[in-house]
Amino acid sequence: MPKIIVEVMPKADLLDPQGKAVANALHRSGNERFENVRIGKRIELHVSGEVTEADLAQAKLVAESFLSNGVIEDVVNIHVEG
Amino acid sequence: MPKIIVEVMPKADLLDPQGKAVANALHRSGNERFENVRIGKRIELHVSGEVTEADLAQAKLVAESFLSNGVIEDVVNIHVEG
Repeated sequence: MPKIIVEVMPKADLLDPQGKAVANALHRSGNERFENVRIGKRIELHVSGEVTEADLAQAKLVAESFLSNGVIEDVVNIHVEG
Repeated sequence: MPKIIVEVMPKADLLDPQGKAVANALHRSGNERFENVRIGKRIELHVSGEVTEADLAQAKLVAESFLSNGVIEDVVNIHVEG
């Protein structure tokens, strides 16, 4: 079944305590190359049959209005897979 | 700063209650085309300078051992961005 992938990240100027905690843990275990970590969401919308232009437009709409919180998050990518 | 993107999803044969709740809410608001929803994580590892082959290999290692739980999650994609 084809999927529309919606990627949502915390806004760049916002603290991401979960990402910070993971970055600190990585540094403690010797992975200093990964300076910073941000953690967001990867949402799969499974569509039956072909993904039409209308499906993609609707996915963009729900991504902005429903799957993300515009105050604290950005939709960074929407693409079709499979 | 270049980023290594690690995408983690709940395993296919596992229930995803958060995704199910979002799917139900989408259906209630008239979006029946999105039959099923799965919600995973999108993790950005920020690397200073160029991303080397060694960085990518190390990212794969920490993705499997540290950023995901192999019992319930799959690392579905690792790629470089920016």
